Amino acid sequence: MAYELYYWPGIQGRGEFIRLALEEAGADYVDVARQPEGMDALTAVLDGDEVARPPFAPPFLKDGDVVIGQTAAILFYLGERLGLAPRDEAGRLWVHQIQLTIADIVGEAHDSHHPISVDLYYEEQQPEALRRAKTFREARIPKYLAWFETILARNPKSDSHLVGSGVTYADLSLFQIVEGLSYAFPRGMKRALAKTPLVAGLHDAVAKRPRIRAYLASDRRIPFNEAGIFRHYSELDG
Amino acid sequence: MAYELYYWPGIQGRGEFIRLALEEAGADYVDVARQPEGMDALTAVLDGDEVARPPFAPPFLKDGDVVIGQTAAILFYLGERLGLAPRDEAGRLWVHQIQLTIADIVGEAHDSHHPISVDLYYEEQQPEALRRAKTFREARIPKYLAWFETILARNPKSDSHLVGSGVTYADLSLFQIVEGLSYAFPRGMKRALAKTPLVAGLHDAVAKRPRIRAYLASDRRIPFNEAGIFRHYSELDG
Repeated sequence: MAYELYYWPGIQGRGEFIRLALEEAGADYVDVARQPEGMDALTAVLDGDEVARPPFAPPFLKDGDVVIGQTAAILFYLGERLGLAPRDEAGRLWVHQIQLTIADIVGEAHDSHHPISVDLYYEEQQPEALRRAKTFREARIPKYLAWFETILARNPKSDSHLVGSGVTYADLSLFQIVEGLSYAFPRGMKRALAKTPLVAGLHDAVAKRPRIRAYLASDRRIPFNEAGIFRHYSELDG
Repeated sequence: MAYELYYWPGIQGRGEFIRLALEEAGADYVDVARQPEGMDALTAVLDGDEVARPPFAPPFLKDGDVVIGQTAAILFYLGERLGLAPRDEAGRLWVHQIQLTIADIVGEAHDSHHPISVDLYYEEQQPEALRRAKTFREARIPKYLAWFETILARNPKSDSHLVGSGVTYADLSLFQIVEGLSYAFPRGMKRALAKTPLVAGLHDAVAKRPRIRAYLASDRRIPFNEAGIFRHYSELDG
């Protein structure tokens, strides 16, 4: 039975980390909310009273009777099944820990344009966004990228994969972080990536993987836009 | 061998979610950075080049050779070992999913007083904090508490535990959320909790558990303070 991914249909957002894993594995899946009446199905799970374990927010995944929310938990669940995580407990937990750190930078990337409230437009919090984006660009992005560079350098099996010698969902997610931040902050990221060549190399290697390349060229890949998590507002790029 | 918890010594912070689980289980553990030279040991893991899989930030846990960062990942690891999580995969993942949602509200609680930068003092971002705390108090806290209330009501085994019929680390963490938010926003939380009686009841029941009660009365429990995640600034409480 196909996996069912539920996520907002117009943006890459947090759903994209799941899409990349499903695409890399060649898994059978339906991007539910992009199908006719799909948004009704999404809303029914979130707001209805049928689901015993309702997620707090999209994305969530249905696999038969199992409903799982939280991006990192979904990837933890899929990692083993899709062959995108190590088999040993310590390895699986390490990939998950990296993913949780990626979730943290995703939250900060979101708040760089929405520092006050998710319920207000960017234009209603632009002065605050200018301040927050500056520190995000100048302090936080370099700090995160330096950590990824360190763990790539310390991986005894490979310096082009975060964990072990094969691709994991964390590699795909780090690719997406570099893509997204480069879209949002082209000037800031160019400077930052120059100092983290292993991160830049991982990004380029993931982009060339046959299934990822095919996916990125397809209409299944939603273009970046200013409703998503990674938004390009040139005034925020310094 | 005792578990070693590494966290900033002067605050409850994210480390407190781990402490509560270890305390409830009566586990043998050392709160490393609160011991003599403990901060050196913490810094050596974070900044040294000895650790193959260095965490991005505290808290982290050492269990023999295993080093695990990210609060939710640490609890996922400990849950099974301490008897604070269900045994089936779906149940363990559900508790973890709840914990990840708790991590999200913890991040938002932090940003209510630090909406611009972790590298600036509160006083340097107070105007922005006033705006962010208002929406956190009025929209976000009620939304999160309503979700916890819903999942308590839908738990077929109990309406005083989030998952199944016994205590899990997610129950302990929700207790801590209620404690922390009540410290930070006493007026706002009193109003919010009046609408979520199951959440209030779970909080009270956890506080009465013998080991938790003993822990809260001990000097192992660091008092809330204005260096932590949950800070009381009366101007932010509306």
